[in-house]
Order: sequence, then structure tokens, then C-alpha cells
Amino acid sequence: MASNSFGNHFRITTWGESHGKAIGVLIDGCPAGLPLTDCDINLKLAKRAPGRSPHTSPRKEPDQAEILSGTFEGITTGTPISVIIPNVDADSSKYEAIKNLRRPGHANYPYIEKYGIFDYRGGGRASGRETACRVAAGAVASKLLAHQNIKISTYLTGVEEEELVQAKEEGDSLGGIVELLIENLPVGLGEPIYQKLDGQLAAAMMSIPAAKGVELGKGFAAAAMKGSEHNQYPDGILGGLATGDPVHLRVAFKPTSSIKKEQDSVDLQGNPAKFKLPEGSRHDPCLAIRAVPVVEAMAALVVVDLFLTNLIQGRYRGVENDQEVLQTTSRANL
Amino acid sequence: MASNSFGNHFRITTWGESHGKAIGVLIDGCPAGLPLTDCDINLKLAKRAPGRSPHTSPRKEPDQAEILSGTFEGITTGTPISVIIPNVDADSSKYEAIKNLRRPGHANYPYIEKYGIFDYRGGGRASGRETACRVAAGAVASKLLAHQNIKISTYLTGVEEEELVQAKEEGDSLGGIVELLIENLPVGLGEPIYQKLDGQLAAAMMSIPAAKGVELGKGFAAAAMKGSEHNQYPDGILGGLATGDPVHLRVAFKPTSSIKKEQDSVDLQGNPAKFKLPEGSRHDPCLAIRAVPVVEAMAALVVVDLFLTNLIQGRYRGVENDQEVLQTTSRANL
Amino acid sequence: MASNSFGNHFRITTWGESHGKAIGVLIDGCPAGLPLTDCDINLKLAKRAPGRSPHTSPRKEPDQAEILSGTFEGITTGTPISVIIPNVDADSSKYEAIKNLRRPGHANYPYIEKYGIFDYRGGGRASGRETACRVAAGAVASKLLAHQNIKISTYLTGVEEEELVQAKEEGDSLGGIVELLIENLPVGLGEPIYQKLDGQLAAAMMSIPAAKGVELGKGFAAAAMKGSEHNQYPDGILGGLATGDPVHLRVAFKPTSSIKKEQDSVDLQGNPAKFKLPEGSRHDPCLAIRAVPVVEAMAALVVVDLFLTNLIQGRYRGVENDQEVLQTTSRANL
Amino acid sequence: MASNSFGNHFRITTWGESHGKAIGVLIDGCPAGLPLTDCDINLKLAKRAPGRSPHTSPRKEPDQAEILSGTFEGITTGTPISVIIPNVDADSSKYEAIKNLRRPGHANYPYIEKYGIFDYRGGGRASGRETACRVAAGAVASKLLAHQNIKISTYLTGVEEEELVQAKEEGDSLGGIVELLIENLPVGLGEPIYQKLDGQLAAAMMSIPAAKGVELGKGFAAAAMKGSEHNQYPDGILGGLATGDPVHLRVAFKPTSSIKKEQDSVDLQGNPAKFKLPEGSRHDPCLAIRAVPVVEAMAALVVVDLFLTNLIQGRYRGVENDQEVLQTTSRANL
Repeated sequence: MASNSFGNHFRITTWGESHGKAIGVLIDGCPAGLPLTDCDINLKLAKRAPGRSPHTSPRKEPDQAEILSGTFEGITTGTPISVIIPNVDADSSKYEAIKNLRRPGHANYPYIEKYGIFDYRGGGRASGRETACRVAAGAVASKLLAHQNIKISTYLTGVEEEELVQAKEEGDSLGGIVELLIENLPVGLGEPIYQKLDGQLAAAMMSIPAAKGVELGKGFAAAAMKGSEHNQYPDGILGGLATGDPVHLRVAFKPTSSIKKEQDSVDLQGNPAKFKLPEGSRHDPCLAIRAVPVVEAMAALVVVDLFLTNLIQGRYRGVENDQEVLQTTSRANL
Repeated sequence: MASNSFGNHFRITTWGESHGKAIGVLIDGCPAGLPLTDCDINLKLAKRAPGRSPHTSPRKEPDQAEILSGTFEGITTGTPISVIIPNVDADSSKYEAIKNLRRPGHANYPYIEKYGIFDYRGGGRASGRETACRVAAGAVASKLLAHQNIKISTYLTGVEEEELVQAKEEGDSLGGIVELLIENLPVGLGEPIYQKLDGQLAAAMMSIPAAKGVELGKGFAAAAMKGSEHNQYPDGILGGLATGDPVHLRVAFKPTSSIKKEQDSVDLQGNPAKFKLPEGSRHDPCLAIRAVPVVEAMAALVVVDLFLTNLIQGRYRGVENDQEVLQTTSRANL
Repeated sequence: MASNSFGNHFRITTWGESHGKAIGVLIDGCPAGLPLTDCDINLKLAKRAPGRSPHTSPRKEPDQAEILSGTFEGITTGTPISVIIPNVDADSSKYEAIKNLRRPGHANYPYIEKYGIFDYRGGGRASGRETACRVAAGAVASKLLAHQNIKISTYLTGVEEEELVQAKEEGDSLGGIVELLIENLPVGLGEPIYQKLDGQLAAAMMSIPAAKGVELGKGFAAAAMKGSEHNQYPDGILGGLATGDPVHLRVAFKPTSSIKKEQDSVDLQGNPAKFKLPEGSRHDPCLAIRAVPVVEAMAALVVVDLFLTNLIQGRYRGVENDQEVLQTTSRANL
Repeated sequence: MASNSFGNHFRITTWGESHGKAIGVLIDGCPAGLPLTDCDINLKLAKRAPGRSPHTSPRKEPDQAEILSGTFEGITTGTPISVIIPNVDADSSKYEAIKNLRRPGHANYPYIEKYGIFDYRGGGRASGRETACRVAAGAVASKLLAHQNIKISTYLTGVEEEELVQAKEEGDSLGGIVELLIENLPVGLGEPIYQKLDGQLAAAMMSIPAAKGVELGKGFAAAAMKGSEHNQYPDGILGGLATGDPVHLRVAFKPTSSIKKEQDSVDLQGNPAKFKLPEGSRHDPCLAIRAVPVVEAMAALVVVDLFLTNLIQGRYRGVENDQEVLQTTSRANL
């Protein structure tokens, strides 16, 4: 199964390596009639851009997305929306020195075992850069959800300014927790059993690089509660379906694996080796900061996909008033 | 999208309501040639059965599964395996009294909002009884994995015997945590980006009724670590692919929602109401106990599906030695 | 990929071998609220039953389908509908004699090469008996379409009574053509490029055992026409989407491969051998006769699936009148 | 469901409109290790290019494809291959005059009914130009198949040179038939029931614009044969699985709908109107000529997808010799 796609009806497929010509996302299934321009996407990408915070990597990524298809005169047409983001500022030469080492916390070893080949410059597909494509697609999803009054909020917790300054100075890194709040979901949104709203959100969050845990409502604390107590905390989802109450998730991110300190590692043949980031490498002391808009984007993608699904799974009203039904729902009205 | 299916290649679809004629699971994509009998499935079902622990519901479910198709002379043939588990011991009459109330922690309200109709006897599809079908399918997956020497272990933590006795006496309930350990995974198992091993495991675990959180390796604790520290704890997955190290997950379960105490609720029209379980209702003071084999089954289903996927995603060796390759891999050799 | 499923939203999975305990179909994605009983299905199955025509196989198949899940008090609930049809009248012993031979026109040879095992009694999954499950599922699809006033008609052509009598006497068989007419399709039904209405119908028809060709409108005759002439014959589909005009398809079926005459063949090791049907084997001199309700069922399954898809792919009206839209389409109204 | 994708394992998604900035195809699931350059694709695209035959449209499409991702140093890496083909030579202004008319044989009417918006310049997504993306993807599939010694041949029949010259002079058009021959398929390739080799080929062929019929082996002629006769003509597929014999298909294409003659039509509101192609419009007197490489490409895509599927569906050999099996098939060896 092709694994670079996400979603069933509002289906995205991302492509591109961190040091290739470009990255991009193809959106298939976006309803027709939505006003959409490059600007809608670039505004969201700007939120993810490094350099906005003094604590994120100084890489200069203009990340100027361009829509190549799927709109006509600024309106979506129902055909695939192809978005391209050219790569710039990619000095690949410095990766030569470490191409034969297992990078601590990085995916190069299992990739090369699986595929027999790996673009060692940067992280290839496993690079965090791929998440720019998620944010681009999430921008389109968010526009659709805004019209339904569904509200998604995200914020970072568990990271202190002072600790961050210190970690940066030490060439070290910090983890963090991204909180997610989804409000105004229609009752019944989500699909029973294996496409539950909570299950889909969990899968989406755990697909973000460096995510190590996800919890809904009281989460792990619920495991230590009694039923009479926990029943008082509605978490917005029952049986995988939205109840109308707000949905609250927390996503744990590990500290950035790439640090400036020298670390013990092994080479790809298993021999002990010292690993040190090449001079001039970018250093992101807390990737959880940049994960915030990615969490928002993935939540928007999950919700819009289940929203579309919800339009056709449900009550059959054909018997009483066929004709009226045909008139009002002869096509999608997201 | 049909939401009662799980997996792409080893694909299961479960069906049946807790108070219907039967429940069952249909397995499509199981390789041919595997010895398989009813007994293989019933042994696993027995582990999930209530009444085995003094702390689980006393419901007498024989849960005798029968294979209706897909085997010939005790061997799988590569065709769909249909497994049926008849329902017995289902006294539905006592649910009449509560059919118009929102059951605390239960899915009847969003279900009826979504579908306009709900089988109020028991939990319908949202009942924990559906998990018997997961265990049945997991039994087949486990047989396949055993031949690959892949080992899955599960155990319950966070539940004390004394607390459990007390909760039962009070008509209350407890949550718990199920730990999962997967060993001997081939390096590279898992698919990048949106079918990551960790993402698929998270989705599988959060699809189990009452699961409220999942974490990999250090999980939420990782969010409070420094990179130099966390890099020393391999968690068995990098970039969504197995590294060969053991994979350790923890799944949090809320306390059983159905308790014997009277609780404040509302009816389906939103008017305040008192909710109390009908006399004689089964009471499961800690459903995390019965979730243990379900966690194992879902893990087996995820791994076997990604194992099959892994057979075709990877290195192309056709150039050097076509003929040899054709001879050794002209068909699946799981 | 599991290959025993058909459809995306109204998704069926069939199971069972011709000489096993039972066959069945699992329907996932049927909207809630549709009145449905065993009788709806058994009426359609009766049309396919042998023995109705003097020219079909005399096998006595009562084919009594039973719904095991997915309805409550005679109404669909939106959960999976499991339908089982027990097998009776299956004398398997006579197949022993031919189990090591390639049966002319039968699938036993590629099956055994692919899977290494084959249920040689009857045709296993490749038996025409599997089509009973299609007819059962098609019965549910047809009920949904009837409420939309969509009309599907099928009839047999190219088979003469006198020829049929003669073929039967000679122990030989005849082919035939099944014509299909679909009326009152909503304009725009179908999905562009790879899920075109005509493409999906063609795939459905060619998945029926013994189908050898399918053509739309003028079909192969169109290849010999000029554009100025052909443009005058609307065929109901443009760019894969329904235009509102009637859709007319023709499906060619080969003559039944199982004939009573002795035929040259080879055994499974490739040595020349004579093949003769065992004494007392059923003989169906023209399987196209029994294919008629199967063509109807497959057409209904294609159309209902695309009808559901059409509810969410299309024009976005959210901007002007959000609230009204939310009220009228907060759930499916097939 | 997203409808711009084709294939399950070797999965392509095409995008772009005939008069937009570019068209393209994203290939997800191509095995790693295949040598691949722009040139491999452009050689195949050249075969489809107009202007090669005196009888195809004189449009000057350089159709220079560029690979943007998925290769490293000229070798596929197992990550998505993004191919872009810029659009040139697109004078859109002349379409203004006909934008409110139903074009005979064209999809603009159902598209605008379905989506409420249509890029009236050229055919949008419904344009034959989309098939360039199929040919580009087919070029990659063909490279993989070449290593397996699987051979696909296509040729045009039913079109006479003299008739073509006459049709062109009259501003009229001709239909044609494309024949397809597939040789050296492994026995057992294809999946039973709903992913049969013949069913998948039929769906692929009928998804090509202007295709009106498809037949396998004796096809419609089989409907007029006796079983004793037809059993002597193996058609290479039994029960949906390849038998090892050559597979022969025929695909009927209608004559080009766009002709230079004035035709009766209606406007989008249904009022009678005369339709005439704008002056200077390209005219392709027989699109079946350009369909030849498209048929080849679609066949290659079907076969490579089923080839990959076949690697994991089949006989289980794990019992006898686990370790050996693990060594030889620990990853895909297409």
C-alpha cells in the first residue's frame, strides 16, 4: 500500500526530499467552489517557518507554495490541487562526512536496510521538512472547516523559556507537549469501530516526526481514577463519535535528536563510532515549537475527512420525502 | 468509507451486535498454507472470556467460534476466512427501562443522533463484545507471526488487587494500563510517513473501547527530557520503521463507565434524569483486565499487515539476477 | 490487497466455497433506516435459482439467505449487514476422480499454482455459486435505488430456444449476451478519470465468471463510424459522468465450459489426459441465462456506490448559507 | 473517494488541466533500486506526441517531463516519484465563444452540473491531455516489467489510410480498435473475484477517454459459440488468474467527437444552438492513433500492480524452512 497518502475523501499525498528540487502535496477530493489562492497556504506556512522564534532553527526557508492545478479563477473546481514548494538553501556537501553513520534518533539506518538506498543529505523523506506539506494541505482543510464553524486550537506546554536558552547554549535540546482543542464538532462525527474520531486523531498525531505519545481527555490519569469520578469528565468522544462537547488531546514530542554534542553511535556496519553534527548544521533546540502548526494541520485533515464521510453515513430518509431530499442533497453541500 | 474493516493485506471486517443472533469476523488476505482450526481461535477467545478472573463480569459467554470458509482439510486456502461466534445468554428485556436515557460514558447518544436508530439492548456495535472478533482474528495473525519468531507480550499494570475488591464492593470501577512488548521485528518493518509502525499501533490501540492514551518508549516522560538524555533510550522505531530493538507501548484504559451507583444524566431530549443500571446487569469492575488479550490481538494484526506490506515495498534486485529472484519469490513466502 | 470486496462506500465482501458449510456476504456502509428483511433478499435469489428455466442446471439450491446483523426491528441500523446462505445438496465425492486434471475452461490450475492448495470439490471460490452472494447484496442496493427512482433493467439476447434444446441434447453449451439498461441517473453521477461510471461498470461486469466482453452504447460498432455519425448517438456517459440519458451496456458471456462431451486436456503436471465430467454432474447448457440477475446486481452495486460518493464530491455551497446547509445535510439523506 | 488515483501498490495519481500551468503524475509505491531518468519517461511521451503521424493533431506539445523527487543519483529510492510536465502552446481565448454550449461528445455539461464550475478552456481534466500522465507513469511500470521479461504489445486496427485522409479533408473523424497482447505473465497473476486480471484490465481500458468497448480473447464472438468449440481457444485468463498463455484484448474507440463540421447542440440551459469549433482549433481525425501508447501504459500499470500484489498473496511456506524464507524474502525483490 502506498504510504504517503492520508485521508479517504479529502486525500493528500506528499512527496519530495529535504534536499531535492522541491517538495509538494497533492490534494484529491477537495469540494468544488472554495475560494483558494497561494496566499491562503503561504500564511499558514509562515507560522511553521523557522526563524520566527529565537528558539527555532535559523534555516532560511522562504517556503513559497504555488498552486499548479485544481483552481479556476481563484475557486476550487473539484479536481486535484497540486501544490509545490521549491527547496532552497540546501547545502548538501557537509553531509558527506556522516553518510556512513547511524545518526542517533534518525531514520537513516532502517531506511537503508529497507530500501538499500538512502538520500543521506538531510533526512530525505524522514526529514521534518515533509511537515511543510501537511501544513499546506491543512490550510485548505481549515478553510473548509471555518465555514462549518468548527474551531481547532493548538498551543505548546511544558517548555520553559529559561530552560530553552540553557539547552541552546549547551548544544542540547528539549521535548514538549502540544495541546489540541477541537470545538463545535457535529454530534455523530466519526465512524464506529476502526475509524473512530479518537483513533484517527491518534494515528495522525503519531505520524508526526518525534511524537511519542497521545492522550484524550484525562488520558493516562484516567487509568488511576474510579468510574464514579471519571464519568464526570466528558471528553467529547463516545464510541468513536463526537458528542458535541469539546475534544481535548495532548501530544508528547521527544527532544530534538540532532544536538551539537558529540554522541556515541555505530556505523551502518555496526562498528562503534562517534557521531557529531557537521559544522554549520542547523540546530533546532525544541522541535515541539514547530510541531504546533503541524498538529493543527493534521487535526484539520482528520476532521474534514470525517466530516465528508459523515455526509453519507447515517440515517436514510428516502422513504418519506424522496423528492425533497433529492433536491437538497443532489450534490455535496459541505 | 466502510469503517468496520482493519488492515490492508491481512484485512479483517467485524460484524454483529451484542444482543443479535451472532457476531463474527471475516478475514480476507490470509496467506494459503497455514494450518488452522476452530481450536486455534477458541484457545485465544478463552483468555478474553469473563469469569476467568474473579474481577471480571460473570457473564457466561462460551464464545465458541466456528470457521465457515477459507480452509480445506485444516489448511488455509488463501480465500476469505469467515468466523462466526453465536450470541447466547442475552436477556434483552431489562434494557427497556433505560432506552431513552443517555448512558454515562456510553455511545448510545451520538449513535442515535448519527443513525436515527439504535439497538438499545446492550451496546450494539459499541459494545465491548465486538472485541471478541478482534481476538479471533488476532489468533490467526499470531499463528503467522509465530513462524517468523516475532514475539508479542502484554500485561496489565496499575491495578492493585485490594483496590479492585473495594471498587467491586462499592459498585464502582477502576482504570488500568496495558503494557505491550514486541520483539524480533525485522529491521525496516513499517511504512514511512502515514503508515508508520508507531502510528498504526497507536490507531489500533485507540480503536479499542475505553482506551484514552497511548505512548511509545519514554512517551510523555520524553517531553521533559533533554536530547542528550533521550537519545540513550532506543524505542525500537525510527522514522516509523522498526530498528530491530524491542518496541514498548503503554495503553491507558479508563475505568468501566457502567457502575452500580446511581448517576446524574439526561434523557435523549436533554432533560435531567437519574441513571441506574438495571437490576441483574453484569458489572465489570475493571475492563482493562479483559483488554489485555485485545491489545495483543490488535498488535498482531498491525504487525502481520505491515509484514506483508514489507514483502513488496523495498529494494529492487531485479537487475543483477532476475532469474534467481523469480524462482525464490514467485509467490508469497510469509 | 484483499480482493473479495467490491465498492467503496456500500462495500461488500463475499466469502465461502461451493462445497463448504455456507457462503455469505458482508455489507458495510449501507445507510441506516432502510426497511430490510430476509424476504427482500430471498425474492431476488429466487430469480437466480436453477430449476426455474428448463435450460438451467437442475441443482436444487433452496438458497435461503438469513440476515445475522445490521438490522433492528426490520430496519437497517448503519452497522454491517451479515448475510449467510447455507450450502446444501453438495455431493463432493464424485470430484475425486478429476482432482488431478486441468478442467477445460476452469480455474483449478492457476489457483493451485498460486496458492499451492485448492478445494477441488466444485469450483471453490471460482464457482458460479459465489454470484449468489452478489445477488443477495444487489437486492439491498436495489431497494435503495428504488427510492431514488433509478431503474435498472436486464435481459438476455442472442440465445435461441431451439439451439438451446439441441445443445442440451448434445451435451454441449451456448454463450449469450446480457443487455443492461440504466435509467434516471442523476446528471454528474460517476467520478472523473479512474472511477468513471463506464469504467466501474466494465470492471463489475468483467468480474462476473465467464464474461468475455463489455461495450457501452454503440460499442465496437462505434470504431467503424465517423464522428459526425456517432455524435448523434448519446450513450448516457460523458467524461465518466452520467448525462441523464439512459445508459445501455452489453455483456458477452462465453458458453459454459463444463460440457458432457469428453475433451482433451492435461493433468496438473502437464501430461496429456482426457477429461470427462463425472456421471451425475450438473450441466448448465447456457450460464448466460443465470447471469442475467447477476448483471443486474452488479449494476446496482456500482450505481449505489457512486450515488453515495456523489453526495460528497461536488459543489461547495457553504459560503452563502452555512446554517441552512448544516441543517439539511447534517447526515446522509440517500 | 479520491478518483484521480489508479493502482494499489504501484499507485499513481494524476493532476492538472489542459490549459493550466502544468500537468503531472505522482507515483507512490515504486520499488527502490530501479535506474530511472527523465529520459526514460520522455522517450515514451514522444510516442504519444501529436505531429508524429500526419493524421494526428498538429499541436506542438514538447511534453518534456521532469522528475522532481523519488530518485537519488539516477536510482529510485522507494519514495514518491513526482513527475511534472509543463503546459505550453495553450491559447485559451478562442474558447470564450463556446463556453456556454454543450459540446457534442464532451464532458463539460455533466462536469458543470456536478461541480458548479468548469474550466471551459479545452477539456479541463476531461481532456485527452491527462493521458500524457498515464504514459509517463506507464514508462516507469514498463521498466519494471522488462526485468521480469513480461512483454506488452499494442497496435491499431480497423483504420484505413485512405479513409483517414478523406475524413480529415471533410473535417470529420474516424474510430478505431487498439489490440493489446500481453505475454510471459506468471501463472497465477491476478486476484480472485473482484480484482481479476481481466476485470482490472477492462476497468483500465474503459477509463481511457473515448473507449467504448473491451473484449478478451474471442470476446463478443464467444457469445455465439458452442462450449466444445470455445474451449479450444485459451484466452490466457481463468478465474481472473493468468494461466501462462498470452492474453489478448481489443479496445474499441469512438471517432473523435470534436469535428470541424457544424453540429446541432444545446446551450447549458437546454436551448437549441449550433456548435462549431473555433477557428484554429486543433483537429485530431482519429484519436485511436494516439490511444495506442495509452493502452500500453494502462496495461503496464495493471500488470505491475498485480505483480506486486502477487508477491504477498499465495502459498505459505513458513512451516518447513522459516529461516531460509526469511533470508530470501526479507524484502521485495520485484
